[in-house]
Order: sequence, then structure tokens, then C-alpha cells
Amino acid sequence: MMKELTRGLLTAILAAAALYPTSTMAQDRPTDPSLKMPTLEDLIPGGETYRYTESLYGLQWWGDACIEPGIDSLVSVNPKNGKKTLLFTREAVNRALEQAGVRKLSHLYDIRTPWPDKPEALLPASQKFAVYNWETGQVTPRGDLPKEPAANYDLNTESMGLAYTVKNNLYVNGVRVTNEPEGIVCGQSVHRNEFGITKGTFWNPQGDMIAFYRMNESMVTPYPLVDITQRIGVVDPVRYPMAGMLSHQVKVGIHTPATGRTLYLNTGDVKDRYFTNITWSPDGRSLYLIELNRDQNHAKLCRYDAESGELAEVLYEEQHPKYVEPQQPIVFLPWDDTKFIYQSQRDGWNHLYLMSTDKGEETRQLTAGPWLVQGILGFNEKKREVIITATKESPLQSNIYKVRVKDGRMTALDNGQGVHNAQLSASGTYVIDNWSAPDVPRVIAIASTADGKETARLLTAKDPFAGLVMPTVETGTLKAADGVTDLHWRMLKPADFDPTKKYPVIVYVYGGPHAQMIVGNYMYTARGWDLYMANKGYIMFTLDNRGSQNRGLEFEQSTFRHLGVEECKDQAEGVRFLQSLPYVDARRIGVHGWSFGGHMTTALMLRYPELFKVGVAGGPVIDWKFYEVMYGERYMDTPQQNPDGYQETDLTRLAGNLKGHLLLIHDDHDDTCVPQHTLSFLKACVDARTYPDLFIYPCHKHNVLGRDRVHLHEKITRYFEDYL
Amino acid sequence: MMKELTRGLLTAILAAAALYPTSTMAQDRPTDPSLKMPTLEDLIPGGETYRYTESLYGLQWWGDACIEPGIDSLVSVNPKNGKKTLLFTREAVNRALEQAGVRKLSHLYDIRTPWPDKPEALLPASQKFAVYNWETGQVTPRGDLPKEPAANYDLNTESMGLAYTVKNNLYVNGVRVTNEPEGIVCGQSVHRNEFGITKGTFWNPQGDMIAFYRMNESMVTPYPLVDITQRIGVVDPVRYPMAGMLSHQVKVGIHTPATGRTLYLNTGDVKDRYFTNITWSPDGRSLYLIELNRDQNHAKLCRYDAESGELAEVLYEEQHPKYVEPQQPIVFLPWDDTKFIYQSQRDGWNHLYLMSTDKGEETRQLTAGPWLVQGILGFNEKKREVIITATKESPLQSNIYKVRVKDGRMTALDNGQGVHNAQLSASGTYVIDNWSAPDVPRVIAIASTADGKETARLLTAKDPFAGLVMPTVETGTLKAADGVTDLHWRMLKPADFDPTKKYPVIVYVYGGPHAQMIVGNYMYTARGWDLYMANKGYIMFTLDNRGSQNRGLEFEQSTFRHLGVEECKDQAEGVRFLQSLPYVDARRIGVHGWSFGGHMTTALMLRYPELFKVGVAGGPVIDWKFYEVMYGERYMDTPQQNPDGYQETDLTRLAGNLKGHLLLIHDDHDDTCVPQHTLSFLKACVDARTYPDLFIYPCHKHNVLGRDRVHLHEKITRYFEDYL
Repeated sequence: MMKELTRGLLTAILAAAALYPTSTMAQDRPTDPSLKMPTLEDLIPGGETYRYTESLYGLQWWGDACIEPGIDSLVSVNPKNGKKTLLFTREAVNRALEQAGVRKLSHLYDIRTPWPDKPEALLPASQKFAVYNWETGQVTPRGDLPKEPAANYDLNTESMGLAYTVKNNLYVNGVRVTNEPEGIVCGQSVHRNEFGITKGTFWNPQGDMIAFYRMNESMVTPYPLVDITQRIGVVDPVRYPMAGMLSHQVKVGIHTPATGRTLYLNTGDVKDRYFTNITWSPDGRSLYLIELNRDQNHAKLCRYDAESGELAEVLYEEQHPKYVEPQQPIVFLPWDDTKFIYQSQRDGWNHLYLMSTDKGEETRQLTAGPWLVQGILGFNEKKREVIITATKESPLQSNIYKVRVKDGRMTALDNGQGVHNAQLSASGTYVIDNWSAPDVPRVIAIASTADGKETARLLTAKDPFAGLVMPTVETGTLKAADGVTDLHWRMLKPADFDPTKKYPVIVYVYGGPHAQMIVGNYMYTARGWDLYMANKGYIMFTLDNRGSQNRGLEFEQSTFRHLGVEECKDQAEGVRFLQSLPYVDARRIGVHGWSFGGHMTTALMLRYPELFKVGVAGGPVIDWKFYEVMYGERYMDTPQQNPDGYQETDLTRLAGNLKGHLLLIHDDHDDTCVPQHTLSFLKACVDARTYPDLFIYPCHKHNVLGRDRVHLHEKITRYFEDYL
Repeated sequence: MMKELTRGLLTAILAAAALYPTSTMAQDRPTDPSLKMPTLEDLIPGGETYRYTESLYGLQWWGDACIEPGIDSLVSVNPKNGKKTLLFTREAVNRALEQAGVRKLSHLYDIRTPWPDKPEALLPASQKFAVYNWETGQVTPRGDLPKEPAANYDLNTESMGLAYTVKNNLYVNGVRVTNEPEGIVCGQSVHRNEFGITKGTFWNPQGDMIAFYRMNESMVTPYPLVDITQRIGVVDPVRYPMAGMLSHQVKVGIHTPATGRTLYLNTGDVKDRYFTNITWSPDGRSLYLIELNRDQNHAKLCRYDAESGELAEVLYEEQHPKYVEPQQPIVFLPWDDTKFIYQSQRDGWNHLYLMSTDKGEETRQLTAGPWLVQGILGFNEKKREVIITATKESPLQSNIYKVRVKDGRMTALDNGQGVHNAQLSASGTYVIDNWSAPDVPRVIAIASTADGKETARLLTAKDPFAGLVMPTVETGTLKAADGVTDLHWRMLKPADFDPTKKYPVIVYVYGGPHAQMIVGNYMYTARGWDLYMANKGYIMFTLDNRGSQNRGLEFEQSTFRHLGVEECKDQAEGVRFLQSLPYVDARRIGVHGWSFGGHMTTALMLRYPELFKVGVAGGPVIDWKFYEVMYGERYMDTPQQNPDGYQETDLTRLAGNLKGHLLLIHDDHDDTCVPQHTLSFLKACVDARTYPDLFIYPCHKHNVLGRDRVHLHEKITRYFEDYL
């Protein structure tokens, strides 16, 4: 009965397939015999001849002057007309460094210019954070740097206070601030980098106080990764809290270098609470953070008094039956210390809300619509504007806008194409706009925020694939398994594509939250391996299923409590679309993905054995109960709360369904998705008498990076060539 | 130059190949269409329908009466005429057990009859070592058994003293004898079961003193095996001393239950010494052992006084520039407590030497010749004969002989065929002879040691493969790479073999010491998987190269200090022989082996990439420096002493040579050949940009046993089917 229903639906979908809107990228590269067939070394990052897209490194603002560093010299660019002025040469800096007994620079890309009013540059840690004055030619290196290997340097350019970590402890200005045993980590990122957390130290604007994370993970069971490069192999454990298990506990400390005083926020019992999105009030006397309960369905914006460490007030609370996920700290208006912008998905899309430190004042939504704000670039203080990037043009794009704070009036500031990454100048009057579009490898330009006009072109990147045979790229949409939602797909066809032939297809999939595979930058983000395989005669297909990024909260949350199930249904729709195409060999469809995509690959092979002949799953999640607390419980709740959901998505239970060829690849040092996933699946397959294949990359973490990435892709290629 | 020389040799060998002597086993099974094609479930141990060869379990002597237990009854067999007498039924024993509140027996196979003069049977541990008197019908269970899980039970049937271990400590008669922390193991086998050691407790004949091993391995680096069946996976470490590294230290204790006294032999510093082959003097007051230095080239037969623990004397010393390997304890003559038999390979073959406890008396060699004694079955005290098994007929056989101690006169006691395993009766006048031959699945008979005549036939096993399609088995010899040594090979051909066709070949290889693949028992020991693959149309070939068992010391020691190199040369000769055969497809030759055979498989793929297209290496040794001290240093010395040898045999250095398809299989709990071998090889291949394949069996040790063994062989089969 169910089967017939599905079949009926399928027929309808196949009939409709020809009508789906598609766009083919203009390809100005014919299949010219003079073109070279690219190798994996050309196309895979880490390859010896990898074709990088040209770029400019270290571009930044010095007040409202654009700074363009090079290997041998550093110039300022006048944003009005693009006129360049040499500020200094590497030779000059190195002369000064040599006199000061400091290691010389081999290029100028890591130099920063944080002081708009001074002719001074900040050199990197390897040069002892020396300050170079390009008018006097003097360098002043710091003297309080550690002799031990240090990390997580955080320098406040106002006070020149310097924080760093040695092993698991925090140091500030050369003084040890914490003295914790192994198992307690200070001054580093916490909560496994979820909730937008990327670091563990937070200077106040004045640089006279520093907040820091202290994570006690001594109660977290370590997962035993094994280092086989030593004789005898040794355990190299990672504290890994698995869903529903005892998790680490985080405190937030505040250290005042002038007095040497360190206090911890009085948050009460820290068990099962997340302290996220730390930021300071403009006066540097209050600390704001967004606190979240373990269930991740109740967020509180809290202000703590930095002197006492006491909770001053809870300014805002947000709840959701599924989850809330604060990822951006609040940002104060530069012209009003009582007003700040809070980002929330509470209307279903990430938008800006103007709030006040005075709880009585009403919150005002600044942006709205079925699209989302991706980031705040800064402000134009004079014009009372906030400059943002958003997906207003298309969920595949990222464009620059200014929003008038007074009334939320929004004005586009770029060409409305592609994907824009921008840096705003000090006054907010110019941006350095680094953008690409499906047919534009990269452009870097300066543009005015008054009218969005380009005022100076810094780079027009050459096609990185010039001289190489390249496939064509098409995109389009099809309906999700819910029958209503549009999903975006990308298809690569061999350069010599012949529509009268039948082609095998490989689906490349990720499918999890916080990622989008089809993005409107160069060649729609087609991956190097996809290009390679298309050149070998495969059609390469990718579909962003429900649950993926930039399509709003409902789209993302449709997968809640049974991750992978709806996603697989959508991918199956993608395959049915493929099978409706006359040039697709319906029996020769493969699938490949890594991490969440490894889960998807495995799940698709097991749930749709009739659709997929070959799969290669890298670093797969096999059973969400082996995944970590922060990410896992957000989407799945705990195994105790959601036993049915965990059971439904546990792929070891489906091991007996394996019919095609499935290669699992795992890294032996994978501390994101531990090897227990793949090994448990192998055991389940042995028990069920099914026959997956396996490869392990020793000495790699959650992905195979560097030179070995070429080996990985050759390995994957051979598997499809052997079996598809 | 070298290459041409090899080529010339090759031509000569190929020309000679047709002349090699071969023997084809008479196969009385035509390719009858009524025969069933066997499955892996039929042919692999652990398979659901595995075809065991019929046998009789628990056969033993009760004095000079043969005891034949069954499920429901136990009979004695008169060795003179085979007449059977019922001694008791299971029902009767169980009635008595039930009354005594002891668990009932589900069969009688584990019952022992150690008291020739009493109508009493000893029941197993599960029945509390109860003694059952079949005349009175009474059972007497022991009361001093442990409540905790115990192991290594050792019961002396003279005194009824009972030793066992709980965790790492020894108990005797319910009393805890040792109280050692984790890292010190008492009462268990030591030295990783090398030197013939299989247990850790040794009662004296009277049962009033017990010697035991105490092994301190706290200084041995543990290898971190990981148990993935627990959430979070946990380390399940094994103390694994690798070649050249710090090894465990062993002491020998003696405990006297009557006094509760425990002493340790005063051996001096126990570092880097092996204490092996423990046995007691007939009077139970002296302990003999053979001590070996770490270099394993100097053995000493020592006598210790059991009362004082002091060394009384060194009776005999043996040295060898390569190694000596004592594996059999001395055995005293039952009619003369001052004389014992020592086994030694000092003339190049394992032979018997008559020695005296009086050092002044001369040693006399009892057996001699280019063949070896395999074991001492016991004595005929009346006739002053020792009964042995030996390879005198053929290195592929094991036959029974009596040797007159007076003058070494040796008389054959069996039919001169096949492989005989025998148990000698109390007086030494009869044997239970359990034998098989190439065309005899199994015969169990009683025979007289007076003339070797069979007096009673207990079993003539049916062909286990009746009704199944079976390949033909051929054997023969060819010359080793040294040009002089004969090597034995076995070849299986499909039942429907057609000499005008070309067949692919799979070489099954072990190749290491202490093992022989071609043995003259049923079907020349052809393995189930070999039969299966021959049925699928492969020729299955196995060659016992130099270094393997039962060919004498020089043959074995030709591989000294560079294990695998000569062995591979011999296997390459085997392949050249195969390639000379008109019905062999010379380009389709594969190789498979496990453990040492895994090393051989990998080494052959890397050293002879032109000969082998496909290999499957299970649990391989990749680099001898990752192997353990006892076995590894015997054949390779330490990495410090023999850096060139270790380098030459380190297969990671040859990873770049891989051309064909090589599947490596390892068990995640392999504590014999730790996973570091395979993982190191994968890393070397990734570095060298070569592409082996991998599979891991979770929760298995050094081999895949039980039900999963069928999965393993299906996996191996698929690999050869895909690529060969």
C-alpha cells in the first residue's frame, strides 16, 4: 500500500522533472584539444600543482586608508581613487629587527595596522609583537614573551595587554593567571567550538580587564585515540562528552592585570549550562553573555558586573520548543552606549533586533523578511547605519547592505551577484569587497558605503583553471520530499557531454546543519574532486537537502530529533530526478560524503539500497549516541529523552541492508567523530553478514588534509572506478 | 647482472619443473551431478553446517583399560579384544549430583579416570571437582572452591591438592598464596607461551608441593588496544614487550600447602632470563628447569633444592651461535630415578639423550638420524622402553615407535602412514592411536606396543565431505632458492579440472617457524577455504619454505636474522614452478596468509610485484621491531644487535613497491601482532602514494574465530573474485 503510494508520487515527480528550472553556467572553455586534463595534484588542496585562485593577503584598513601588504613592501591605497603610497619596505623593517635582535620577516602579510592615528605597524608573535614605526624606523619588541611553547595569543591594541596560554593555563603580560591541573583548561575555546565560540580570551575595549573561559573537563570520559608513530603505540586521549553523558563545566573568569586580581562570575551551579557569546560593555565594566541550558531551548542574555562578578540583570530571554542557537554576541551602537543589536532566529530567520540596556525600553526588529542576516560588518557612525551581509538576493548569495538604524531602511551596496566578504573601514565609509560569482573567480575592490560604487579595483583574479579541461556546471531546484520546499542542486557534466549517451552519477553530499554545498561563488563551489570526476566521465550531482544552511529555521529544524531521515528522503528525490534524465544511467549512481556527509552516504546506501550502487563514507557519524553533547543534543536531544529518534538513526541497526559497495574511511586521530563510529558499524556488518570496505588514514584528524588529501581522493576515485 | 643471473636460474628451474616428483591423491569422487557444491558454512570452522570429521571425545586410560565416554554413558574397553563394559550412566551420576546440590552433567566427555586402582571418576570444575564412585554411587564435591571467577585449575590426583588463579593471584586449596598488585601475575603461563610453556603451576608427583610462575610485567610498556563495545570506548591494554625493549621478569615460587610456606628460587638477578621447562624430580624434592639467556643462545639445565630454593647444580649446558630452543622438560625413567631423557637439537634434529643426575656419568644419545622426535608418549617400564612419535618415515608424517633404552633399538609401532596421535596406557603396553592419512579421514584404534598390531577398532570416521563436490589434491617437491633443498608443496585442482584451460592460482602461505602446512593427514591438511576456492575454479597452491617445521635445525635457521627474506625467495620459486605449468595463467597469481603468513603475503607483493597480482594479508607482522621479545629476538636478535636485518625486513620501507591489489586485515584486539603493524604500513603507503585496502574485525584477537570466520572468508573470497 505504502509502496504503491510512493511509486505514484515518484511517477508524478519524474513527469515534473523536465520542468524544473535550471541554469547552465556560461562556459567559455570549449573542449579544445590544446587544453590539458587536470590531475588531482592540480585540483585537490595539498596537491603539488594545486590551482589556487589569485588573491591579496593581509588586506586591511588603517583608519580609512586601505593597507595592501606584499612580500617586500607595504602600501596604502587611497579608497577614493586607488592611488597607492609606499609606507615601508621589508628591507627597512628587517634592518630594524636585526638591530633589535629579533627574527626577520620573510613577507609582510601578517603585519597589522590597528592605530589609525599613528605611523605604526604591529608585527606578529614570531617577531615578538614588536611595534614598527615607519617614520622613525624604530622597532620595539615585547620582553615578556614565554620561553615555553605558547598559543592563543590575544593582544589588546589599546593597552597593549597580551594574553596567551601555555599548556592548559592562562598568562597575561607574562604573569601566570591560572594554575590548574590537567583536565582543567583556561583561556581556550570551550564547548567544542559550538555556539559561535572560537576563542577563550576577551579583552575589554580599554584593555584593562580580560575575561576568559575556564573549562573543567576532568569529569569527562576520555576517548582513547592511539598514536602509532611511537614504539610502543601510546594513548593520546581526548575528553569527549558523548550525548546524554556527563559533560564538562565552564566558568568565566575576569582578570585585572593592574591589580593581579582574578575572579569568576558568580553563575551558581555550572553543571549542564553553556556560557556563550561573551562581549563587553563599551565602558568595559560589564560583561555580557548568552547563557543556554543543556537542553538548548532557553537562552538568556545576561549582564554581569565585572568588578563584583555578580549577575546584574537578565536582559532578554528566548525559548523554542526545538532549540535556540545564539551564535553572535551583541554589538553596541558606537553612538549610544545604551543600545545594542541582538541577533535572533525568533521569527524563523536570523535578523537584527535593536535592544536597550534599559529593560523597560521596547525591542525593535531592524531587519525582517524570508532571508537572513549573515553578519554585522560594522557601523557608519556618522550616518547611523549598520553594515551587514545578508541572503536577501538569494539563499545562494551573500551581499552587502546598509541598514538605517532609525527606521531599518535597507540599501544594497554591491552588484547583487555572488558572494561578498567585506571589511569595513574605521569610519564605515568604505569596504574592501572580496567577492566571487559563478563566472567570476574573484574580484577585490574598494567601494563606498554611500552609494555602493566601486572606487578602486585591487584585483581581478585570473581563471585558476585556465588551460585545463573543465566540466560544465548547471544548477536548478527540485521539490523536497515534503512536496513543497524548493531545494537547490548543482550538476557537473563532462566537457564533451553527449546527451545521447548514458552517464554514471556520483552524488556528493553533506546534508547537515551549518553548511551549504551550492553557493553562488565561482563555479557554484564545485569541488576539485567533482571537477576531476566529471572530467573522467561522471555526472557529479549535489543537492542541499532540508536541514542545511541559509534557508531559515523551519527548513533547518525539519530534521529535529531524527537527524538524517528527512535529509535522506530529499536526497532520494534528487536521485529520482536524476533517474528521470535521459542521459543518466539509472543503475550506476554512487554517493560520497564526509562527516555528516559520511552519515548521509552510509544511511543512503542502507535506506535506499535500490538507488545507490556504490558509496564512499568518510569520518561518518554512525550512531548519534557516539557524538558529542553540544551539537548532538541540539538536534537530537539526549538518548534518554529521545530513545526512538536515536534508534531510528542508529545505522548499525541497518547494517544488514547493505547491498552495494560501501567504503568507509576514518582517520585514526579523529577527535570530532571518533573511530568508534566506523568500528561499531563494521562489527554490526560482520554480525549481519554484510560486506563494507574500509580504509584508515593514520595520523589524521577529522579529515585528511595536506599532501595526503591527494592520496585520499585517488583512493576514493579508484573505488568508484572499480565498482561504479 | 644480478637480474640476468636470476633469469638464467629461472630458465633452468622451469625446464626442470616438469620432472619434479608429484603424487596425486586417489579421488574416488567423480564430478557427479548429484554432488552438492559446499558452501563456506560447510567448510569453515564456525560455519553453521561445518563438516567436522567424526571423532570420539574424552578417550583415556584407566590403568590399562580404555575409557570411552559418551553423552549418556561411560564404558571401558578391553584393549585385548575391544569388549566394552558399561561403568556408569549419566543418569546415575546426575542423581548423585542432584542429592549433593551440585550442577548436573550434560555429557560425560569431561570426566577423568586418573585412579587405576579405584572405581572412581573425577568430575570437572563445573561439578566442583567432585569424585564419583560408580560402585557406591556416591559423589564427594570439593568445598574450597572460590566464589570469584577463577581460572587455571590444576588438580593433583595424588594428594587432591587444587590450585587456581583469581585475577592475577594464585590460590591453593582455597588459600590465597600470593598477594600481588596489578602488573604482577602469579600461577599463569609466562614468556608469552614460548619455550613450550603452556601453564603456570606445577605440582610435584606427591602433590605436597607446588611450583608456580610469578611474572612481574609492571615495567613492560602496555600497548593500548581499544574496546569499542563500551560507550565511551575504553583502553584494554596488553603488556607487550617489543624486541629490544624492557621485558618482564619471571620468578619461580614453591608453595607447601601443609605448612603454608612459600619461597622463591634463589636465581639471582632475574632480568633478561627465561625460566622454562619446569619439572620435578620423582621424589618431589628437587625442581628442574632449563634457563635461557635473553640472547637465547645458551641454555642451562638446572636443579634447585625445593626446600631451600637454592641452585643445587647445573647438569648440562648447550650453546649455539644462532639460538637454542628448549621446548620439552626432562622426563625421568620410571625404573631409575637417577636417569632422565633430555631433548635437544644439538646434532641438527630433535633427539633423545639419556642423562644422569650424576654429572660424572656420560650422556648417551638414544635416537639419531635426519629426522626428529616429536614427543615422548611414555614408557613401558617392564620392557625398559620409551614410546615416542617421530618423523622417521617422512617429514610429512608422525609415527609411533618404541625405543629400547638399553641400546636405542627402535621399532615402528604403527602402519607407517599418516599422522598418529597416541595415548599410552599406564603400563605402556597399549596405545589409543588416533590417526589419519591423505585418504583416511580418521581412525581410532587400540594397538599393542609389543608388536604394534591393532587389537580393537574404536572408530573409522566417515568422509566428512561425502556428498560434496571436492577438488583433487596433489603433492610434490621442488628445489628451494638455494638450489639443493627439497621443499614440499600441495596443489588443489577443481574437480572438473581441464588441463587445456588456464587457471588462476592462489598461494596460501604461512612460512614461519613451528608450522608446517603440508602434512600427511587427511587431504594433506588442505584447508576448508582452499577447497572452496578450488571449487570456484582456482588452483590452490601451498609450499612449505625453508624456515618451516619438521625439517631440522639448519632448514629452520637458514632464515636467522632476516626473517622472511629466504622464505620469500622459496615462495618465488614456487610461483616460477606454477608458471611453468601449461594450465596456470601466469599473470593471475594471488597470495593469502595470516600472521607470519600475513608478513609473507605483504612481503611477496612488495618484493615480487611482477609475480603476484592480488594479496590478502591477515594480522601481518610488518616490522619485527613491533613484535615481541621472546619469539622476535630468537630469530632476529634485537634491533640494537641487528639493525641491518631489521631494516631489510621492515616492510614499511618497501611500501612504495606496491603494484597489485593488497588487502590487509587486522583484528582490533590483536594482542599477538598488535594493530600498529598494519596501521604503520598504511601510513607508509599513504606517504609513498600506494594504495592497499584494509579491513578490521572488531572484538577479535589474532585471528577471526567462531561464526565470524565465515564472514572473514567470504570477505577474502570477494577480494580475489573482484581483482584476480
